Amino acid sequence: MKIVIDAMGGDNAPREIVKGALEALEKNNAFSIVFTGDEKAIRGELSEYSFDSSRVEVRHASEIITNDEAPATAVRAKRDSSLVVGLKVLKEDEEAGAFISAGSTGAVLTGGIMYIGRIPGIQRPALCPAIPNVRGAVTLLCDAGANADCKPAYLSQFAIMATAYGKAAYKMDNPRVGLLSNGTEDHKGDMMHQEAFALLKETDGINFVGNVEGRDIMFGDCDIVVADGFSGNIALKSAEGCGKTVAAILKEAFSKAKMHYLIARKQIGQVKNILDYSRLGGSIFLGLKKAVVKSHGSSRADAIAATVLQAVDVVKGRTVERIAEMLPDSVGE
Amino acid sequence: MKIVIDAMGGDNAPREIVKGALEALEKNNAFSIVFTGDEKAIRGELSEYSFDSSRVEVRHASEIITNDEAPATAVRAKRDSSLVVGLKVLKEDEEAGAFISAGSTGAVLTGGIMYIGRIPGIQRPALCPAIPNVRGAVTLLCDAGANADCKPAYLSQFAIMATAYGKAAYKMDNPRVGLLSNGTEDHKGDMMHQEAFALLKETDGINFVGNVEGRDIMFGDCDIVVADGFSGNIALKSAEGCGKTVAAILKEAFSKAKMHYLIARKQIGQVKNILDYSRLGGSIFLGLKKAVVKSHGSSRADAIAATVLQAVDVVKGRTVERIAEMLPDSVGE
Repeated sequence: MKIVIDAMGGDNAPREIVKGALEALEKNNAFSIVFTGDEKAIRGELSEYSFDSSRVEVRHASEIITNDEAPATAVRAKRDSSLVVGLKVLKEDEEAGAFISAGSTGAVLTGGIMYIGRIPGIQRPALCPAIPNVRGAVTLLCDAGANADCKPAYLSQFAIMATAYGKAAYKMDNPRVGLLSNGTEDHKGDMMHQEAFALLKETDGINFVGNVEGRDIMFGDCDIVVADGFSGNIALKSAEGCGKTVAAILKEAFSKAKMHYLIARKQIGQVKNILDYSRLGGSIFLGLKKAVVKSHGSSRADAIAATVLQAVDVVKGRTVERIAEMLPDSVGE
Repeated sequence: MKIVIDAMGGDNAPREIVKGALEALEKNNAFSIVFTGDEKAIRGELSEYSFDSSRVEVRHASEIITNDEAPATAVRAKRDSSLVVGLKVLKEDEEAGAFISAGSTGAVLTGGIMYIGRIPGIQRPALCPAIPNVRGAVTLLCDAGANADCKPAYLSQFAIMATAYGKAAYKMDNPRVGLLSNGTEDHKGDMMHQEAFALLKETDGINFVGNVEGRDIMFGDCDIVVADGFSGNIALKSAEGCGKTVAAILKEAFSKAKMHYLIARKQIGQVKNILDYSRLGGSIFLGLKKAVVKSHGSSRADAIAATVLQAVDVVKGRTVERIAEMLPDSVGE
């Protein structure tokens, strides 16, 4: 199995990308790596480490897509970018199972649809991050922002895709699926979500437990939260804002009490750990013919290593095949 | 000025409600109190404190509306409930400026519209909590859940109402208004929010700064976040879920390290303070002819006292009058 990695995407590329990928290589010998990007820069980074060179390839790409560019235009225009070259390798190399980038989210989503394509029957691929929860496990949030305008049928497919992903990559057994709404009662939600609720109750192969609230993503007891991409993104970012605020206040408070920090650092570390969820890996873009994973733009080596190992699990767990198998027969026709 | 208080609403009624209201009475002598509810129970609580009895009235009400009841039915059927009696006092007594309840949110919203009525021209009243932010100030979130299905025109009015409220009760000077969306770029949002964006740009009397993300509610630098009630509620609850998770992890971590807790408790207290935003008062229901404020169901005396003082500021700051003044002339016709 090959994992293709955009070596030029994100704030800390290529240094932390290469370092993290090699860390993952050492931890798991089930795969090899294809880096895409500026060959000279990548080889320069690689020369700093010792590793099994038979498990590392480099494909040169002369361009980089930045966060400032309009995704659709950039993906079309920059055909020799590390992102597009990587997606092409994923598509064309039969051994390639997943592609990872810490670059522009919009470009990863647009490029994924354009070059990899949707699983037959899937109407809208969706972004699905794993968020740490109070139980010490993760909650999958699908869609976290790929589709601002949604129809009930999309949400039914998000539930199917996230269920397959949870079983394949997180060993979830019959994961509980909640619908993100403005209250837990059955009648809650705007009209679209009320229709989605009715449809989710009838969707085969998922364990639908009803409406859930924003607080249930981290503090509740479902495994998967299905959302339209607009409010799913708002939920994710709102929790992130609270987390950043807590982290800032902790930092400020202890800056004047360094000794107290040293004494309590283990306990504070536990809080920081849950707030820094990049350590859990990236957000998979579910619904494509092969796995595409977006790593956080600010990812350092440990986050990249986690994302690479997560991608290996995604491929080994047959996530894409499971999604295709779960779709009703009528859908693919 | 009279502040009318539902003495029977919330988890800790009537004890903490009465205690908190009397605390507020001692801190500010600009107002008097009308308690509604079981007279015997209220007088029993009052007998435990010494206070200026000329500033406290009790109106007997024989019924209580609970959280388990369907709001619209309960508000219609229980005409002698502490909630309905309180709203009637607010409506009929010219000196009464605000009503506070820690009871069922749905019943407070339904009862407010039914008994107090909307300001002429306001299409949909909206719930507007004040959320602590990283700057040590508050961000007003409007609507946080009263209206699941919204139109762009409603959001324009939410911005007007929250601006008036921010100026009146929080001394905000030309408050910056953001539209809650799935990204900060101008083109972000589903179709409804794209239309709302265009309308907000044209709305007179507000200082619109563009789209904001969920993280900006606590971590950003706008003063007011305008949202449809569906995603506004999700944003609020998602931040709350993160906060509850952090609090649970802190508690768990320090339960095994009590001495460390004692040493670092001042710093941990600063985090707890920001997460427990009931200390900031309640959520005002904006757009009614008189002020109706919902206090958190689990409010204790300190939260009730804060809500009462907040209600006094709302009335003194002429919030309702300011909203009416800000509406375009054409709207009220």
